[in-house]
Parts: sequence; structure tokens; C-alpha cells
Amino acid sequence: MLAPMDGLARTPPPPYWAVVFTSRLSGADPEGYAQTAQRMERLASAQAGYLGLESARDGTGLGVTVSYWKTLEDVHAWRDVLEHRAAQARGRDTWYAAFELRICRVESARSFEA
Amino acid sequence: MLAPMDGLARTPPPPYWAVVFTSRLSGADPEGYAQTAQRMERLASAQAGYLGLESARDGTGLGVTVSYWKTLEDVHAWRDVLEHRAAQARGRDTWYAAFELRICRVESARSFEA
Repeated sequence: MLAPMDGLARTPPPPYWAVVFTSRLSGADPEGYAQTAQRMERLASAQAGYLGLESARDGTGLGVTVSYWKTLEDVHAWRDVLEHRAAQARGRDTWYAAFELRICRVESARSFEA
Repeated sequence: MLAPMDGLARTPPPPYWAVVFTSRLSGADPEGYAQTAQRMERLASAQAGYLGLESARDGTGLGVTVSYWKTLEDVHAWRDVLEHRAAQARGRDTWYAAFELRICRVESARSFEA
């Protein structure tokens, strides 16, 4: 399951888990970053417990990416996937000037469609 | 307290609350939307329990905005602010093609700065 066409994740009723990853790019190695980001999105979507992903990055290099997971154990398992670990290390070394990562339990949710 | 210069919110240690608002703009009334979005950001930052805000919108009109709050009561109080209620109604009528709103309890967090 990849992100739907409009970029909104249609998740099941709560509770479930959200990983909010807010980052500012350093500007170094933009091609490597873009390629790896795409690869990680595809890899995440193949993990157990993956429920969806929403991601936006503006023209200044600020991005907010939220991935959704069935359980906290699924969140931790994704964090520990070897190829993901390698990408995280490259992120700290090269791609990110700063980030904030928050693990959250989704308690309630609401959808709107015009 | 407005969003810091780099767009990342420096929040206190968990637990606290996050409102994840993911939206796709309809494209209607972009000036009204931009003006109201800026006003709501300023208004939110003046509410009790406000801890910060992170927001990115890409060139396709997909945005992810996360606001952080001390308690769930603070989240509900902000939802019910009259001027915010009016903006929400205009959002559904005019500005948004679709959105997902999720209320989450932040359980753990991590920061990185290069």
C-alpha cells in the first residue's frame, strides 16, 4: 500500500500509532536524499503494521512526514530495519540540518472530503 | 511564542498532545486561505497550553500541519475558539478538497541538530 493519489492516508479507526518526523534539509546531496526518501517510502509500505504515510516538503527545505502504524512494536520494528538504519545514519551525516521525531498514539480522528 | 525560524518546534519532554492536520487545498480563494492560515497560526500561539507548530505545504497543495498542546483540554479549547470555528467552516466550504485530522498523545520524542 503506497500513499494514495491525493496524499492523504485513509487510516482505520483509532487507536493506532503515528510517527511525526519534521526535518530541515541541509541542502547537501539532494539527488541522494530524494532517491533514498522514495526508497524508504516504498520500504515502509511493505512493513508489517504499516497503515499509511503523509508527507509534504515546502520550497525552503522544511518537511513534515507522518507515518501510521498498527502498534508501537511495528514502529520499533520499522526503526530497526537495517536499510532504514543506514538511511537514518546518512540523514544525520549529510541530509538533515535538524529534525524532530515524535512517536504518538492516535486517540481520535476525523476525515473530510468536499 | 510563534514557530521558530527553522520551522521546528522545540517542545518539552512528553507526554503532551499533537494535532496532525493533513489537507489538500481545493485551489479556491488562495489569498483568503493564506491570510486566514497566517492569522490562525498567530491566534493558536496565543492560546493556553500552546507548545508550538510545524507546517509544510508542497507545490501540489498538500500540507501537513502539526500543532502541539500541553493537555487534551487545551486541544479542545483551541478547536472551540469562535474565530477558529469560523475559519474551520470556511475551510470546509471553500479552501479544502479533503483533510484528515488526528488527535494524538505524544509518548516519546527525539531531537537532532547537525
